[in-house]
Amino acid sequence: MFRQLIPFERAKQIILESIPSEPAETEEIPIYKAYNRVLAEDIIAPFNVPSFNRSIVDGYAVRAEDTFGAEEEKPVKLKLVGRINVGEAPRLTVNSMETAEIVTGAALPEGANAVVMVEYTSRKGDEITIYRPVVKGENVMKAGDDIKSGEKILEKGEVLVPRKIGVLAALGFINVKVYSQPKIAIISTGPEIVEPGKPLPLGKVYDVNSYTLSAALQELGAIPLNMGIVPDEEKKIENAIKTALESADAVITSGGVSVGPKDLIPKVLARLGKPGILFCGVSIKPGKPTTFAVINGKPVFSLPGQPTSALFVFLMLVRPALLRMSGIRKEMGIQTVEAYAGEKIFPARGRKTFVMVSLKRDDSGKLIAHPVPKGLSGAITTLAKASGYVEIPKNRQFIECGEKIKVHILEN
Amino acid sequence: MFRQLIPFERAKQIILESIPSEPAETEEIPIYKAYNRVLAEDIIAPFNVPSFNRSIVDGYAVRAEDTFGAEEEKPVKLKLVGRINVGEAPRLTVNSMETAEIVTGAALPEGANAVVMVEYTSRKGDEITIYRPVVKGENVMKAGDDIKSGEKILEKGEVLVPRKIGVLAALGFINVKVYSQPKIAIISTGPEIVEPGKPLPLGKVYDVNSYTLSAALQELGAIPLNMGIVPDEEKKIENAIKTALESADAVITSGGVSVGPKDLIPKVLARLGKPGILFCGVSIKPGKPTTFAVINGKPVFSLPGQPTSALFVFLMLVRPALLRMSGIRKEMGIQTVEAYAGEKIFPARGRKTFVMVSLKRDDSGKLIAHPVPKGLSGAITTLAKASGYVEIPKNRQFIECGEKIKVHILEN
Repeated sequence: MFRQLIPFERAKQIILESIPSEPAETEEIPIYKAYNRVLAEDIIAPFNVPSFNRSIVDGYAVRAEDTFGAEEEKPVKLKLVGRINVGEAPRLTVNSMETAEIVTGAALPEGANAVVMVEYTSRKGDEITIYRPVVKGENVMKAGDDIKSGEKILEKGEVLVPRKIGVLAALGFINVKVYSQPKIAIISTGPEIVEPGKPLPLGKVYDVNSYTLSAALQELGAIPLNMGIVPDEEKKIENAIKTALESADAVITSGGVSVGPKDLIPKVLARLGKPGILFCGVSIKPGKPTTFAVINGKPVFSLPGQPTSALFVFLMLVRPALLRMSGIRKEMGIQTVEAYAGEKIFPARGRKTFVMVSLKRDDSGKLIAHPVPKGLSGAITTLAKASGYVEIPKNRQFIECGEKIKVHILEN
Repeated sequence: MFRQLIPFERAKQIILESIPSEPAETEEIPIYKAYNRVLAEDIIAPFNVPSFNRSIVDGYAVRAEDTFGAEEEKPVKLKLVGRINVGEAPRLTVNSMETAEIVTGAALPEGANAVVMVEYTSRKGDEITIYRPVVKGENVMKAGDDIKSGEKILEKGEVLVPRKIGVLAALGFINVKVYSQPKIAIISTGPEIVEPGKPLPLGKVYDVNSYTLSAALQELGAIPLNMGIVPDEEKKIENAIKTALESADAVITSGGVSVGPKDLIPKVLARLGKPGILFCGVSIKPGKPTTFAVINGKPVFSLPGQPTSALFVFLMLVRPALLRMSGIRKEMGIQTVEAYAGEKIFPARGRKTFVMVSLKRDDSGKLIAHPVPKGLSGAITTLAKASGYVEIPKNRQFIECGEKIKVHILEN
C-alpha cells in the first residue's frame, strides 16, 4: 500500500480531473420545482421582452412630431381618442394631432411613437394640451429593449436561484431541463461506531458522520443514500462499497483509513476496479489519511473517522467534486470574512493546517476568531461552536494574537 | 386611504413588531430530515462526551506514578497485561508496574491514568520499556472533557446546519423538536398578468412574481402556497386573500398597489380584519408602494408588481419577518462584498435608493459593480444579470466611478 502524502492542491486537482466535465443525466421538471437545480440547457428567449412597445409612465401616447415646438407659452393641443389600460390590446390608432391616454405598462397604440408624461399636460374634455415636446421613443420601452427574441439569457450550468426562475417564467417556460442530482452513498465504518438511538456500551461512540455528511450533501443539492454502519470486516466493507457503487454516482466512506492493522478501506479499494486508488494520504491537518479512488468511473472518497476532520475534508475535497458532478460551471468559492485572531494560533508542523474557529464580535464590532476548542481536540464541541476555519501555510510558525486573518465560513 | 410614505427602517420595525417572538407550532422529526430546520428546544447533553476516558494517542496505558523518573538512560520496565482496541470495553485492570497496549480512541482500562506514546517505548515480549515519564491525565481525554453531561450544547432558535445535526447524533438523538415551517400564500394580481404556458396576447406579460417569490420562500425554509393569478376585481381579490388567510400563516400579494384607480389591494386590506393596514408606502426605490397589514394576527405583505421590485422588497422587508416566523433568533444579515463602482451611479431623488448591480472581476482581481441594466428599467434582464445591490442614502448625490462600495448579495 502506498502511503506517500501528496500536497493539498494536487489532491484537489486529481479529484477534479476524474470527474467528467458535464453530468450525463438530465431531466425535465416544472419551473416551480426548479429552485436550486442546475440548468442543463441554454435558455434562448423565444420572443421579445417586452413583447410590445410599452409605456413607462402615465400620460398621453402621441406622435412625437406633433409635439415639436410645444412649450409652456405655446402649447400644442391634441384630440383625445381613447384610453389604454394595462393588460389591454389597444383597439385604436393615434392619427396626426390625436392622442390616447395611457398608463405605465400599457401597450402603445398604433400610430403613437412616444408618451408625454401626465405632468406636462392638461385636459379639458377631449382636448389635451401638451406643454413639452417629446422625441420619438421617449418614455417608451420598445419591444425587445429588455431581451431580444433569440438572445441567450441563461446558460447551461447556472444554478436556478429565485431571480433566474423568474426569468424562465417571464419567457413563458413551464418546464426546464436540469441536470439530475447526483446520488451519493454514505458508509460509516469503525468498530467503535454505534447508531444513535441504540444503547452506548463502554468504549463506543455514536455515528456522527452519516448524519453530518448526509446534511452536507443536501446542502449542496445532492441526494444522500445512507448505507449505515459497516463492521470492520474486509468482506463486509467490500460488499457495502460494491452495493453502494451499484446504486450511487459516488461513494463517501468515513473511518477505517488511519495507519494501523485495521485499515481495511484502502485495501478493499485497491482491488475493486480500475483505475483504483489515486492517492492515499494528503499533507494537510486535519485530513491526512484521506484516500481517493475511482472504481469503474465512479469516485470513492474515504474520509477520516473523526467527525470534524470528516466534515472538513468533505468541504475541502468532496464539495468541489460534487459541484462539478451537479453540473455547476461557475467556480463557487467558500465565503470568507475578515477577522482578527483572538489568541496565538499554532499550525501542525510541516503540514498545511486548517484550524477551526468560532467568531464573535467585540464591542467595537470587529470579528474575533478563537480556535475551537482550546486545548484538547474535542470533536463534538468543535462541531457545535466552530463557524469557520483559518488556513495556515505549511511553513508559517504561528498566527499572532490580534493579527488580521481570513476566515472561511463553514456553511451558508 | 392614507398615502404617507414612511422611512425604510420604520417600516421594518413595524413589520418585526407585529411578529410574535416565538413561533407557536413545533414538530418532532428524525434528525436525518432536520437539515436547515430550526431548533425549538435547548439541547442538553444527556451524558458525558466522551463517555469514557479515551486515549488520544497510540501507546501504552499506565499508572503515571510508575513512570516517574524514567529517562533514556534509566528507563522503567512494565509488564504488558493486554491490549485495548477502539470500540472495546477493557476487560483488564492495570495494576502497579503493569501496562496495556492501547490505540487512539480506545477506552482507558481500570487502574491506568495516563498513556505513554509508542514513540517513547520499546517492547520485548511482555516487557515494555518506558523512556519518558508521563503525568496523570497525559494523552487522555477524560470523560466529559468535550461535553459535560447536563451542559447546554445547542440552543432553541439555532439553524440545524450539518455540523449541528452531527452534535445531535453524537448525543444519541434520533428525533429533534423543531419549529414548524411557516406556510406563506402567494397571490399575483394585475390585469396584465398571464400564467406561463398559456398564449401571451398583446399587452400582457407572464406572471413572474409567483415563481420568484415561491423560490425565495423555499430558500428561506418556508412553504409556499401558490394561489395563482387573481383578476383585478375587488370581490375576487377579497375572496383570494380571505382563503389565503385561512390556510397560510402569512400572505404575500404582488401587483395592484401602485397609485391609480385600480389599487384594490389596500382598499380590500383596510376592511378585512383588525388591526388592518399598518403602513401604505415606504420611502425607498424600488418598493415605494409596498403596503403592510395585519389581519387577525396574520401579516399580509403587498408588494409592487414589477418583478425586480417585488423580489427586492421581499428581501428587504419580508425576509426579516420570515426568519422570525421560522423561529431563527440570530440576526441573519445579508452577505456583503466589497466592490468598486464601474461607472457613476445615480440614486432617485429624495428616497433611499437601492441599485441592482452585476459583479465581475477585472484583470487585477478587483470586483467591479455595474448597474443592471444600463438606462431603461428592464425587469427581466435585471433578474438575469444582477447579483447584488448597492444602497444609496437619501441625500447622497451619486456614487463616483471607481468608488469603493459595499454590495449586498441577492442570494447564497
